[in-house]
Amino acid sequence: MQPYEPKWQPMRSVLMVSVRDDSDLPAAYRWLYKHHVSDSISQFAPYVTKYATYRALPLSKSAEHFGTYNFIMTEHYWLIDPFSQSDVPQGLAFCEHFSDEYLAITRQPTGMGLRPTKWTGTKEGFHPTAFMFLPMFWENQFKGPRSIEDGPNYRWQFAHTYPDNVEKDVAEQWFLNELMPAFCELPQVTQALSSRVLNNPRKSPFYRLSEIWFENSLEWEEAVKTVASWVKKPAWASYDEFPYFEPYKDFVGVFLLDRPESDHLKQFSGYVTTR
Amino acid sequence: MQPYEPKWQPMRSVLMVSVRDDSDLPAAYRWLYKHHVSDSISQFAPYVTKYATYRALPLSKSAEHFGTYNFIMTEHYWLIDPFSQSDVPQGLAFCEHFSDEYLAITRQPTGMGLRPTKWTGTKEGFHPTAFMFLPMFWENQFKGPRSIEDGPNYRWQFAHTYPDNVEKDVAEQWFLNELMPAFCELPQVTQALSSRVLNNPRKSPFYRLSEIWFENSLEWEEAVKTVASWVKKPAWASYDEFPYFEPYKDFVGVFLLDRPESDHLKQFSGYVTTR
Amino acid sequence: MQPYEPKWQPMRSVLMVSVRDDSDLPAAYRWLYKHHVSDSISQFAPYVTKYATYRALPLSKSAEHFGTYNFIMTEHYWLIDPFSQSDVPQGLAFCEHFSDEYLAITRQPTGMGLRPTKWTGTKEGFHPTAFMFLPMFWENQFKGPRSIEDGPNYRWQFAHTYPDNVEKDVAEQWFLNELMPAFCELPQVTQALSSRVLNNPRKSPFYRLSEIWFENSLEWEEAVKTVASWVKKPAWASYDEFPYFEPYKDFVGVFLLDRPESDHLKQFSGYVTTR
Amino acid sequence: MQPYEPKWQPMRSVLMVSVRDDSDLPAAYRWLYKHHVSDSISQFAPYVTKYATYRALPLSKSAEHFGTYNFIMTEHYWLIDPFSQSDVPQGLAFCEHFSDEYLAITRQPTGMGLRPTKWTGTKEGFHPTAFMFLPMFWENQFKGPRSIEDGPNYRWQFAHTYPDNVEKDVAEQWFLNELMPAFCELPQVTQALSSRVLNNPRKSPFYRLSEIWFENSLEWEEAVKTVASWVKKPAWASYDEFPYFEPYKDFVGVFLLDRPESDHLKQFSGYVTTR
Amino acid sequence: MQPYEPKWQPMRSVLMVSVRDDSDLPAAYRWLYKHHVSDSISQFAPYVTKYATYRALPLSKSAEHFGTYNFIMTEHYWLIDPFSQSDVPQGLAFCEHFSDEYLAITRQPTGMGLRPTKWTGTKEGFHPTAFMFLPMFWENQFKGPRSIEDGPNYRWQFAHTYPDNVEKDVAEQWFLNELMPAFCELPQVTQALSSRVLNNPRKSPFYRLSEIWFENSLEWEEAVKTVASWVKKPAWASYDEFPYFEPYKDFVGVFLLDRPESDHLKQFSGYVTTR
Amino acid sequence: MQPYEPKWQPMRSVLMVSVRDDSDLPAAYRWLYKHHVSDSISQFAPYVTKYATYRALPLSKSAEHFGTYNFIMTEHYWLIDPFSQSDVPQGLAFCEHFSDEYLAITRQPTGMGLRPTKWTGTKEGFHPTAFMFLPMFWENQFKGPRSIEDGPNYRWQFAHTYPDNVEKDVAEQWFLNELMPAFCELPQVTQALSSRVLNNPRKSPFYRLSEIWFENSLEWEEAVKTVASWVKKPAWASYDEFPYFEPYKDFVGVFLLDRPESDHLKQFSGYVTTR
Repeated sequence: MQPYEPKWQPMRSVLMVSVRDDSDLPAAYRWLYKHHVSDSISQFAPYVTKYATYRALPLSKSAEHFGTYNFIMTEHYWLIDPFSQSDVPQGLAFCEHFSDEYLAITRQPTGMGLRPTKWTGTKEGFHPTAFMFLPMFWENQFKGPRSIEDGPNYRWQFAHTYPDNVEKDVAEQWFLNELMPAFCELPQVTQALSSRVLNNPRKSPFYRLSEIWFENSLEWEEAVKTVASWVKKPAWASYDEFPYFEPYKDFVGVFLLDRPESDHLKQFSGYVTTR
Repeated sequence: MQPYEPKWQPMRSVLMVSVRDDSDLPAAYRWLYKHHVSDSISQFAPYVTKYATYRALPLSKSAEHFGTYNFIMTEHYWLIDPFSQSDVPQGLAFCEHFSDEYLAITRQPTGMGLRPTKWTGTKEGFHPTAFMFLPMFWENQFKGPRSIEDGPNYRWQFAHTYPDNVEKDVAEQWFLNELMPAFCELPQVTQALSSRVLNNPRKSPFYRLSEIWFENSLEWEEAVKTVASWVKKPAWASYDEFPYFEPYKDFVGVFLLDRPESDHLKQFSGYVTTR
Repeated sequence: MQPYEPKWQPMRSVLMVSVRDDSDLPAAYRWLYKHHVSDSISQFAPYVTKYATYRALPLSKSAEHFGTYNFIMTEHYWLIDPFSQSDVPQGLAFCEHFSDEYLAITRQPTGMGLRPTKWTGTKEGFHPTAFMFLPMFWENQFKGPRSIEDGPNYRWQFAHTYPDNVEKDVAEQWFLNELMPAFCELPQVTQALSSRVLNNPRKSPFYRLSEIWFENSLEWEEAVKTVASWVKKPAWASYDEFPYFEPYKDFVGVFLLDRPESDHLKQFSGYVTTR
Repeated sequence: MQPYEPKWQPMRSVLMVSVRDDSDLPAAYRWLYKHHVSDSISQFAPYVTKYATYRALPLSKSAEHFGTYNFIMTEHYWLIDPFSQSDVPQGLAFCEHFSDEYLAITRQPTGMGLRPTKWTGTKEGFHPTAFMFLPMFWENQFKGPRSIEDGPNYRWQFAHTYPDNVEKDVAEQWFLNELMPAFCELPQVTQALSSRVLNNPRKSPFYRLSEIWFENSLEWEEAVKTVASWVKKPAWASYDEFPYFEPYKDFVGVFLLDRPESDHLKQFSGYVTTR
Repeated sequence: MQPYEPKWQPMRSVLMVSVRDDSDLPAAYRWLYKHHVSDSISQFAPYVTKYATYRALPLSKSAEHFGTYNFIMTEHYWLIDPFSQSDVPQGLAFCEHFSDEYLAITRQPTGMGLRPTKWTGTKEGFHPTAFMFLPMFWENQFKGPRSIEDGPNYRWQFAHTYPDNVEKDVAEQWFLNELMPAFCELPQVTQALSSRVLNNPRKSPFYRLSEIWFENSLEWEEAVKTVASWVKKPAWASYDEFPYFEPYKDFVGVFLLDRPESDHLKQFSGYVTTR
Repeated sequence: MQPYEPKWQPMRSVLMVSVRDDSDLPAAYRWLYKHHVSDSISQFAPYVTKYATYRALPLSKSAEHFGTYNFIMTEHYWLIDPFSQSDVPQGLAFCEHFSDEYLAITRQPTGMGLRPTKWTGTKEGFHPTAFMFLPMFWENQFKGPRSIEDGPNYRWQFAHTYPDNVEKDVAEQWFLNELMPAFCELPQVTQALSSRVLNNPRKSPFYRLSEIWFENSLEWEEAVKTVASWVKKPAWASYDEFPYFEPYKDFVGVFLLDRPESDHLKQFSGYVTTR
């Protein structure tokens, strides 16, 4: 048996987490900063080059129609695939700590392991953690770029997948050549980016992650209303309301600032251990 | 003329800031982290020993009845009184930068200077920045203390003042011996603290700052409902609804985690200058 | 009632902690770094300007005859007296967490509170935490100073008190004019320092804290042997063996490097909260 | 000639260092923190992602029978093999500084260069620096994993090699299927891990690095006594006493906490230069 | 004898250092970062709240007529007077290290101790270290303030003293009411500040420290030419050329950016020891 | 289309920047620390492992004959080639901010994009940014290495290219076997290093980057005078004066300390964003 040497595989990942409702935030944050950041840094500092958490902005009026998550988005940059040996990381001295409270808050079904790829979210029910691996660089830039000096940024980050049986190429044509360009026509859209979700590793059903940037939520509300009136339901879609994806199942998202709440590898220096 | 030597005057300060609504958050945060933290550290690092910002938790159902603020609370610990020479700091090379956007977001009246003591907040209108200086140590601990290990903390921090013409001693009796003890009878209250606001320096009308801690917002909602049914309107009060103070005018507050979003003096290291 | 404003009172403190034996180190260190450093920084960061821990060096052959402690020495620099309001800090939202394991490891008697001034250590039994407040600057420098470039430093830090009924002035003459000068005659002594322990606050029975520096433990062993042969038992002493103080009761010490293991305020950035 | 581009080769390394005896610690630590950490970071920061030092815990009663080291274990995570061009790093502007005192303390034979692969340790004589490169992830996990919340960790980290002429496969069967499982039967063993030492680069004779974790040294003492009574000397072994390897020659180890004393890349910021 | 408790005495200090010429910079910087910053932080971290070094900008054409220094300006903020016990700090375990090379570079006369108050600088000869203690806040602001957003800052910082026998009040009138206002009339002057040097502690002969800010050195050159033509030699002056003070003796200065090269307490974390 | 995965390509890069003259330094530094460091870290932190800036030392007498730059040298260590997708980085949300003032200061021709490979510098005119990618390790070490303890370091870093039509092998023979060895004969040369500039990516015309180290500028002045008298103009050279390359066109350089002014990834923590 040869020693296992992880392949060079630089990637970004995005991980959206939802809690039952805002009343869970104190317990969820306590888990994050008192337990999870230490656990995470101890585990992956040797092969993660950025680890940052963005707090979800409050949901504006129409946010739930777009499968919006309400807790955090965590961004990692990896040098290797942490799941390349198996579905859960192997060969580590310490495992992560998940309290019962945390499992309740994020409604993890018992007996299934954490973050399984196959859970299905629903509007009223469970919003599973959406964990996606992405190329290091954005694949599509429909509008932009923007400099930090240009003004405030209200980032709508969303992931979608196409229903089973839909022909991907056709659906992609619509997304790339109709939907995104429609947004870009609006002056209040300051940037639009998208990448396909990678297949290795795959930890969620989503096909594509995109971002459309505004200066604030009022402009987003107006934009989705306008684009909804311009872009008709495509033939392949089975969900009737704009954006024609079932929220929390085929379409999830989160609203973010451009700056993370915490750049953990830089800021955090608590009980960090060997691995 | 003798050289001015600032008096030893160790104090904590609490500064609550509200924005018009959640859509202002991207611009408000941009001002905070891109401009204000640098300005502040450059100015007061030699005599401030802690400078931390707590993001306001989302407003739960009844929050507006209690004058709740929606942006941030900033906590400082001072070794001196920064206003001891005059109403605005003197003898500094650099002044702070306030963009027009920031002034609009926080609805600063033009021509009045920033953070004047005498502005008056109203429920529908303006929620002036509430800036209070406090003793280093809490004066009253009605319930507690609590250890970090004990569980999540949902801190209700609020300031109140008594209407003009009310006899302070009588009103204080009610607050200290009726209202606060009523809250402490509830099992979901994990801690209750209070201090009088200092008069030197005085930058807001509030008489007292208090905190009542819960584990989450559901328990707070239930608690205010219960205590409202127990504690009747005192004779001196002019506002009819519990807690018998006019929200945003005589009573303001904010809901906080126990951990700041950013411990600036420790974490921030951007364009910090001489002063 | 006037608001309490802590007096300007800059001090150093030294806190020596012993565990039952070396097998307690994993649990003791876990308590220190996983719980206590967070608790401490959260509590006193606004008025402590240095907080550092030095790991006790392993006990050399004769160390136990000199009441040597085996875990850590923690050094603080304070701007105020944290015990000025009462025997235990008041007015804090969070108290420190002491696990049962920690209480067992440090043999804390139940029902007495932590760190009481009046416990008495014994050679075979309990070695109470020795917590002393000292002037910011050393009062006596018998030999020195030394520059960091001059070589390695093996610091023998020890505290002593005189038995009851001994006339302090007489005993002090002996300590300052006989014992310390005897050590300073040895070429292997590179520095000798001493200060009286302050009375406000007083948290241990010790009268004086001293340091005699060597380059390593072999030189210390030789030095105590030599000085023991030179300096006879003074008339007032009741303990027969050199240094004529009962170890762990009237004389305690610890062997240290010149550099702390951790300069906590600088290095640690874990779950730090409001206070 | 093509420019040399180091191959992607992510690895962990473990480096155990012993000093003559505890009296060397002040000089050894001075060399480490005053000279070596700067030298090291300056040299390899661009391709080392973690660099941490663990202080050896004091040797318990039976430790020397197991070839225990008494100074430090340093752990690195590398992206490349620093020895891929030659036995000593090439192409660096600065070399590391080793004082004569350090060479004496670690008993480096003169005229042989530092850290040669072929030195042989002996119980009474020299304990050469044991420098091993390992896969990023543990290859065998006999027991575990463990979460940081589970309790204190007393890590017995040890390396062994089989005597010449021993058939590796047979010996490995014994180690993997007899010795390690025997330890795992004990309830006081909380974790057991092992990996083969890599051959590229090879800087020591050891074949395998393992860790068995306990909560403290008393449990280790008891465990080795128990397992010694269970596991008989294998036919291939030439050393009679348990664990049937010659200490300091074929078997070396160190006792560690789970948390490093210093996470240098994070904490240290002294005279760091170009390379 | 009462224990010595340093008085509360918050101050800023400014320390200008010159080397023989630019060829000394590598040795001077090596002394600063390899030796002095560690020494300094170890010594005064408990009572210094800011310690920052600004690199002197290159001397423009007329700089030497104004006694310009060519190495660094170091700025400290103190809570106490470090010289209150005696001319050199007392009661410290470690003294600072000054290599012979450093003494040669800064032309320290042998046998006089470092930084004596009474040395006299001359244009061709020695430029003694100019060490001044100042109030925390500027006493005079002739023009300003300025925000960090307003543009680049080229700070001319200078200290002057009046020749013996000159009546201070008269000379001060000229400085405050003629010279500084003349500069402020120029549009290229963006800020002008001044404070009297404190007498306790006094470590240099200078009476007043001032700053006049420009956007670059060309504007400074033009400004001094213009003001020289406007402001005539006052009756009390004995030096004929503008600014009517003998350079390097009665008038010294340095040109600085607004941002220090290194904010040592924040950035540096090398071999920092006990004191 | 496959997702783009950047190739493993570890490299160092060196970037020399010149400003019109010293009067530009305040504006140039303001751009660097107030804008550029944030922009850069936000963009490349996930694949840059070191990012440090060295301030150019003041130009000594003969410096301009050697094409010396006067602002900064920035050193990066990359894990990937940031230009592998195209001439300017693609797939980034934020672009870098270059103010008009910065463009003027560095004399960027309008309409050509920043840092084009093909600009040509001239002695009197424009000194284009010299951006070179290099192997991680030095290819040639003519003299050295040196330890940090050995003394101050005055690094002459220079890049050269051979005129068109010159046969590279012949010219290289001269450089490697005549010029560099001549310098190494001088006792004041403490180190000499060189590497070929990589072709992928290529962002400047230079063929080779070298460093020759001295203890100060006086020794450099003497060395270039001596070597100029020893080494005659090679047949292939078209520029008559030593070192026989046209300054600012075929030969550029900068004088540096061994320690960067700022190790940005470690020290800077301002407005750092997603990318």
